[in-house]
Amino acid sequence: MGFAGRDLISINDFTNEEIEAVLDLADQMNSALEEGRRIELLRGKDMATLFYEPSTRTRGSFERAMHKLGGEVISFPEAQTTSSAAKGETIADTVRVLESYADIIVIRHPWEGAAKVAADYARVPIINAGDGGHEHPTQTLCDLYTLRKENGTIKGLTVCLWGDLKYGRTVHSLIYALARFGAEVLCAPMRGLDVPEAVLRKLGSEYNYAPKKVKPDDLNSLMGEVDALYIAPSKPYSFPLPSPDFDTTSSVEIDIREALGKTDVIYVTRVQTERMTKPPGTESKESYPIVNGRFLQEFKKKTLVMHPLPRVNELAYELDKYPRSVYFQQAAYGVPIRMALTALLLGASEIRVPEKSAPLVTKTVYARYKGAFGVECPNPNCISKQEREKHYISPEFKMLEGEPLTLRCVYCEHETHPPFIATSEWHQGVLENRRYYSSDSFMLERIKPENLIIFGSESEAQAQGFKRSRYATTHKKARR
Amino acid sequence: MGFAGRDLISINDFTNEEIEAVLDLADQMNSALEEGRRIELLRGKDMATLFYEPSTRTRGSFERAMHKLGGEVISFPEAQTTSSAAKGETIADTVRVLESYADIIVIRHPWEGAAKVAADYARVPIINAGDGGHEHPTQTLCDLYTLRKENGTIKGLTVCLWGDLKYGRTVHSLIYALARFGAEVLCAPMRGLDVPEAVLRKLGSEYNYAPKKVKPDDLNSLMGEVDALYIAPSKPYSFPLPSPDFDTTSSVEIDIREALGKTDVIYVTRVQTERMTKPPGTESKESYPIVNGRFLQEFKKKTLVMHPLPRVNELAYELDKYPRSVYFQQAAYGVPIRMALTALLLGASEIRVPEKSAPLVTKTVYARYKGAFGVECPNPNCISKQEREKHYISPEFKMLEGEPLTLRCVYCEHETHPPFIATSEWHQGVLENRRYYSSDSFMLERIKPENLIIFGSESEAQAQGFKRSRYATTHKKARR
Amino acid sequence: MGFAGRDLISINDFTNEEIEAVLDLADQMNSALEEGRRIELLRGKDMATLFYEPSTRTRGSFERAMHKLGGEVISFPEAQTTSSAAKGETIADTVRVLESYADIIVIRHPWEGAAKVAADYARVPIINAGDGGHEHPTQTLCDLYTLRKENGTIKGLTVCLWGDLKYGRTVHSLIYALARFGAEVLCAPMRGLDVPEAVLRKLGSEYNYAPKKVKPDDLNSLMGEVDALYIAPSKPYSFPLPSPDFDTTSSVEIDIREALGKTDVIYVTRVQTERMTKPPGTESKESYPIVNGRFLQEFKKKTLVMHPLPRVNELAYELDKYPRSVYFQQAAYGVPIRMALTALLLGASEIRVPEKSAPLVTKTVYARYKGAFGVECPNPNCISKQEREKHYISPEFKMLEGEPLTLRCVYCEHETHPPFIATSEWHQGVLENRRYYSSDSFMLERIKPENLIIFGSESEAQAQGFKRSRYATTHKKARR
Repeated sequence: MGFAGRDLISINDFTNEEIEAVLDLADQMNSALEEGRRIELLRGKDMATLFYEPSTRTRGSFERAMHKLGGEVISFPEAQTTSSAAKGETIADTVRVLESYADIIVIRHPWEGAAKVAADYARVPIINAGDGGHEHPTQTLCDLYTLRKENGTIKGLTVCLWGDLKYGRTVHSLIYALARFGAEVLCAPMRGLDVPEAVLRKLGSEYNYAPKKVKPDDLNSLMGEVDALYIAPSKPYSFPLPSPDFDTTSSVEIDIREALGKTDVIYVTRVQTERMTKPPGTESKESYPIVNGRFLQEFKKKTLVMHPLPRVNELAYELDKYPRSVYFQQAAYGVPIRMALTALLLGASEIRVPEKSAPLVTKTVYARYKGAFGVECPNPNCISKQEREKHYISPEFKMLEGEPLTLRCVYCEHETHPPFIATSEWHQGVLENRRYYSSDSFMLERIKPENLIIFGSESEAQAQGFKRSRYATTHKKARR
Repeated sequence: MGFAGRDLISINDFTNEEIEAVLDLADQMNSALEEGRRIELLRGKDMATLFYEPSTRTRGSFERAMHKLGGEVISFPEAQTTSSAAKGETIADTVRVLESYADIIVIRHPWEGAAKVAADYARVPIINAGDGGHEHPTQTLCDLYTLRKENGTIKGLTVCLWGDLKYGRTVHSLIYALARFGAEVLCAPMRGLDVPEAVLRKLGSEYNYAPKKVKPDDLNSLMGEVDALYIAPSKPYSFPLPSPDFDTTSSVEIDIREALGKTDVIYVTRVQTERMTKPPGTESKESYPIVNGRFLQEFKKKTLVMHPLPRVNELAYELDKYPRSVYFQQAAYGVPIRMALTALLLGASEIRVPEKSAPLVTKTVYARYKGAFGVECPNPNCISKQEREKHYISPEFKMLEGEPLTLRCVYCEHETHPPFIATSEWHQGVLENRRYYSSDSFMLERIKPENLIIFGSESEAQAQGFKRSRYATTHKKARR
Repeated sequence: MGFAGRDLISINDFTNEEIEAVLDLADQMNSALEEGRRIELLRGKDMATLFYEPSTRTRGSFERAMHKLGGEVISFPEAQTTSSAAKGETIADTVRVLESYADIIVIRHPWEGAAKVAADYARVPIINAGDGGHEHPTQTLCDLYTLRKENGTIKGLTVCLWGDLKYGRTVHSLIYALARFGAEVLCAPMRGLDVPEAVLRKLGSEYNYAPKKVKPDDLNSLMGEVDALYIAPSKPYSFPLPSPDFDTTSSVEIDIREALGKTDVIYVTRVQTERMTKPPGTESKESYPIVNGRFLQEFKKKTLVMHPLPRVNELAYELDKYPRSVYFQQAAYGVPIRMALTALLLGASEIRVPEKSAPLVTKTVYARYKGAFGVECPNPNCISKQEREKHYISPEFKMLEGEPLTLRCVYCEHETHPPFIATSEWHQGVLENRRYYSSDSFMLERIKPENLIIFGSESEAQAQGFKRSRYATTHKKARR
C-alpha cells in the first residue's frame, strides 16, 4: 500500500517497514537541506495547521517543512478561539470545510480521538499532531529518527522512559514503536503517573511486549535535597481535560540504578499538568528526582538523553552541555521528518517499502463492535463524550478477546467492562424467554461473538425488553 | 466602471451586471483549479487578513484564494488581541498603516460599519468579511454562485430564509441580492429574530420588494418532540455587542407547509447568540423546529438545502446525505469566488461587464444629510457610537423620503426618527422668530429639504438658539 | 565587521556608520519597491515572528519585508498563549528550537532583556522588536530614515520628545541615536514619566550628552479646556509588568514655547499604560496637553510631527492634514528598513561601511562584572528576575566608573547600588581578618576593581564568611 492519500493518526497506522521508509526519505530530505538544494515538490499546495492547543515545535516544523517543499500554509494557531469552533462548530464540519481550502490538514486538539474523527470526515490526508493524552505519532517519528541517527539501529536498545507516562501522549506513541522495533523499555514513572493500563494491555495483546518498571521507592535514592520536582497541576487549557482513571498494574520491577546502568537512552518527559484536574492529593504531594548532573555517574558512557520538549524543570539545564544530550537535535529533525511525511501523504514522493519479512504486528485480537446498548466510553476527555460532537458521533468499540468482557473505544482506546450481556439467538427462537446475564457469568463464553448483545446497565437491558436471569448477579465486584 | 481599486462593503456596491461578471470570472477560476492550471496573477502581492472575530471559512478561503493566485498573506487571526487594537488604536489608523504593508485588506469586525470606515481611510481596496450584524457580501457572492451553479439561474427561484434573520449578517446581504435578481423570498424567522425593519424598508423603497413571512405558530407543526431548538445566548466576543432594538412589522403571511412545498431553496442559518445581550426573556424560552429528515417530505423533489456555516444544531446531520444538501459545496466555492473578487479589485483580471439593460436598482430615495444637531445612531453597536472611534467619526445620515422623518445611518444603516425640526429660512429672515417644531407636525412637508434643521432633543434645539413653537408637542407617541 | 550573522538588540549594537549603511540600503530597497522591481534575495529562507505582545506595524512590516525579499514567514502572533511558553518553556529553550525552523527570528516580549537572552542562546540572528520598556531599535531605524528623508540630515536637528518618556521603549532607543548623530534633544515628559535616570546616565557617560527638559508647569499654558489628556493605566498584558522605580533627576530646563519655537521635529508618544501598575496616585490625576492644531502656531514653519504609533488620544486627528505630519510615512518606511536589515543580517546583501573617521562612541566606562553575592537587578520586569528563566540565567552586571558604586544589569540596563563590599586580597593574606565595608565608605577607592567583592546585604556577606568592619555603617542613606 502506498502512502498517498492516507492519514497518520496513530503510530500503529504504519508498519515497521513503512516507518523505516519515512525515515529513509527523511534522510534524503536532510541531505538536501544540508546541501541547500531546493526541493519544490509541493509548489501550489496548501497545508492547514489547525491547532487547538499551544505549539512551537510541531506547528513551527510543519510550517518550515511545507515551505521547504515549496508549499504554502494556512495557519490557525489558536483554533479554539479564532476558528468557528468558537461559535460551536464540530470537528467534522470544520474539516469538511477546510478540505476545500487545503491539500493536507495537521490537527492538534485536547480531546482524545479528535484526529481520528477529522480523518473519518475529511477527504484530504489528516496528520495527528497530538490528540489530548492519546498519541502524538509525528513526535515518535522524530524520536525514532534521532535514535537511528545516533545509534544506527533501534533494535536491542534499552530505553528508560522517565516522568509522566500517564498523560504524555508522546510516550504512548513511542512505547508502541519501541516495542515493535525490538527495543527494551524500562519505565520510571512518577508515582501515580504510570503508563495507562490500556496501553500496557494493547502492548501485551498485540505486540507481545511488557515493559519493565523501576521500583518507585528506589527513585528517592537519586534525589539530592534540592533536586526534587513537585507536581502541581496548572490551569487547564480552554477545553475541559479531566483525568482518565486507570488502575495501574505493576509489572516486573527492577532496581533504578540497575536500570540506569544498562540504559542506552533516557527519555525524559514533562509533567502534563494541563491534563490533570484539581490536585488529586497524591499527585501534588509527590516529589520526584530531577534529571541532572548526578545522573551522569549512573549512566553508561554513551547514554543518550532525550526529551520531546518543552521542558519545565524536570531536566536540569546543566545537562545541555553533556555531548549526548540530543533533545534540541530531536526537535531539529522535525523538519526533514515532516517534509518526508507530508510529501508521502500528498503523493509527491515515492519510496520503496520492502515486503514485510517478519511482521511485528502479530495478531488482530478484536473485531469492530457497534451493537452495545447504553455503553459509553469511560474517558470523559474522549471525543465521543463531548456534547457538541454527539450530534454525529456514536460510541463505537472493538471487543477484545478473552475475559473479562472488554470493549476498547475506537476513538481514544480507553477500555470499559460492560456489566450485562444477552444473546440475539434466543431472541429469534423463544422471544418470551429473553434474559440478560452478568458479563462475568459463564454465558460470556457460551454466546457466539456474532450473537452477543451488550448492555451498559440493567435498566438499559430492561428498556430493550430483556428480563433478569438468575445469572444477572455475579459474585465478582462491579466494574465500570 | 471597472473593478480595480474599488471596495466591497455591501452587496449593493455592485450592480447585478457586476455581480454576474464576478460569478463568470469565478467560473473561469474554478475551471483552472479543476484542471490544476497555475494562475499566478498576484505574484509579489500581499493580502492582509484582519480578523477581529473568529473565522474558519472566510479567512481560510481568502488565504487559499490568495495563494492560488500566487500571492502572499499577512495574517491577523485575532486582531482584537494581537494587533494594536489591544493598545487602543482606531480602525482608521490601523488601515492607514496596513495599506503600506498589503495591497488589499480583508476585514472582519464586530462593529457595524467598521468595514466602511476602513474603506473611507485606506487607499488600498477593502473587502468586508463581515461587520457585526450588518452585511457579509462575499458570503452572498458564494451563495449566488451556488444557486447559479445548481439551478442555472437565480431569477424566479423561491428561497425560504430560515432561522435567525435578525442578527445574521449573511441573510441581510443575501436578501438584497435575491430581491435584485428577481427571486421570491419567504421568511421563516424564529420568534423575535425577524428581518430588521430597516432592511425591509430598504428592500421596499429601493428594490420595490417585500418578502413573505410564514405564520409563526405554524412552525410548531413541524416540530417533533425532540427536534426543537432552544435559544440560549452564549458569551459575547471580546467587543460589546448589544442588541439593536427593531420593531418587527409583519408582512404577508403564508402557511409553512405551503411555503416549503413551493420552496426551491431553504437557506438555514445559525442563531447568532454572540450578538445577543443577556437572555431577553422571549428569546431564550422559544423553541423552534430543527431542519431535519422530516422536512424532506415537505420539500419539492429538487429543493436545495443551503447554510452559510458554521452550524450548531439548527440543521440535523442526517441531512448531510441528502443529495441536494449543498452547504459544504457552498463553502468550497469560496475559493474561486474570492480569487475572482481579489483579482478584479487588484486590477489583475478584467472581465467585460455588459451594459445595464434594465437596471434593477430603480431609484435613489435620499440625499446625504449632515446637518443634524444632537442626533445619534440608535444602534449601540454602530461604529459611530464607539468611544474610541469618535475621535474622528461624526454621526452621518441619509434622509429617507416620506413620513415619518427618518434618517439612516451611513455606517450601519439603522434608522432613527428625530423628534424636532426647524428651518434655516426663517433664520435668514426674522431671527427673533426662530422656533422648533415636532418632526411629525405639518411643518415637515412645508420646509424644503435644503432648509431643514434637525434636532435630537428639545434641549439641543434650545442650545442652538431656537424656541419652542406651539407645534412642538405632537399627539403621536415619542419615537426614538 | 560585516552584518551577516549579527543580532540587533540595542540601537547601540550598530555604529553610526553601520546605521547609515542600513539607511543607504533601505534607500535602494525603497527604489526597487517604487519601481516594482522584484528582489528575491531570500528565496527559500524563513523568518519566525515571535510576538509575546500585540503588534500591527512591526509584525506586519517585517512579514511584508520578508515577502518582498522572496522569503516566507512562520508566524507566532500571540506567542504567550499559542507557543510552548504557555506550557512554561523558557525563552532560551524556545529559540534553541526555533533556530532549526527559521533562518532569522524577530522577537517581541514584555520582559526587559528577553531579546538579549534569545540572542545569547540562538545561533541564528535575533532582531529585538521591543523588549518591555527597554528598547525598540528597528523603530529607531525607521525614525532615523524618516528624519534623513525629510531633512537630508540628522546632525543639528532639534527634536522635542513628547509624552511618556519613561515606559516608551521607542524613545529610549531613539534618544541614544539622536545624541550619537549630533541632534539636540528637548524632553517634554508628562509628569512622572521622564526619561529614566539610567538612560540619562548612559547618555552622559558614554555619549557625553545631556538632553534639555521643558519646565513641567509650563506645559499647562498650552492646554485648552478640553484638550487635556488624563492618564489612566489600562489592564496589563498577560505578563506582569510592574513599574520600575526611577529617581528623576532634573536637567537644564527650558521654556516650552521657546522649545517648540526652535523644534525641527516633535516626536509624540503614547502613554504606555500597559506597563504601569495600578494607578500610582500622581500618574492618574495628571493632565497633559494634547498635541493638536493649537501647536501649529507655536511651531516653526517646517516642524515635522512624528509618532511611532499606535496613537490613542495624545495626538489629535486634526493634525493628520498638516503636510508635515509624517507618522504614517514613518510606518510605511518600516518595509524598506526591515528589508535592508533582514537582508544584511542574513548575509544576502552587502553594503560598504565606511571607516570610522570620528567615532561617536567615545569610551567604554565599565567592565563586565559577575563577582557579586546576593545582588539582584532592581527591575522586577527584568528577565533575570523571572522565576521561569532563573533555571539558567544568573544576575550579571557591568560596573560603572566613579561613585557611588553602581552596577548596571546586562539584560535590562537598570542600575543598582549594592550596600557592602570587601576585598579578595586580604583573604589571600590574613584569612581571619576578612571584613566587609559599606560601599560608600573610603574603601571603595582603595580596593582594586579586580579584587572587589560585592554583597547585596549584610547577611549575604556573613554567609560568605565575612565579618562586620567598623566602616560597615555609613552616614549616607541606604540605597537599593
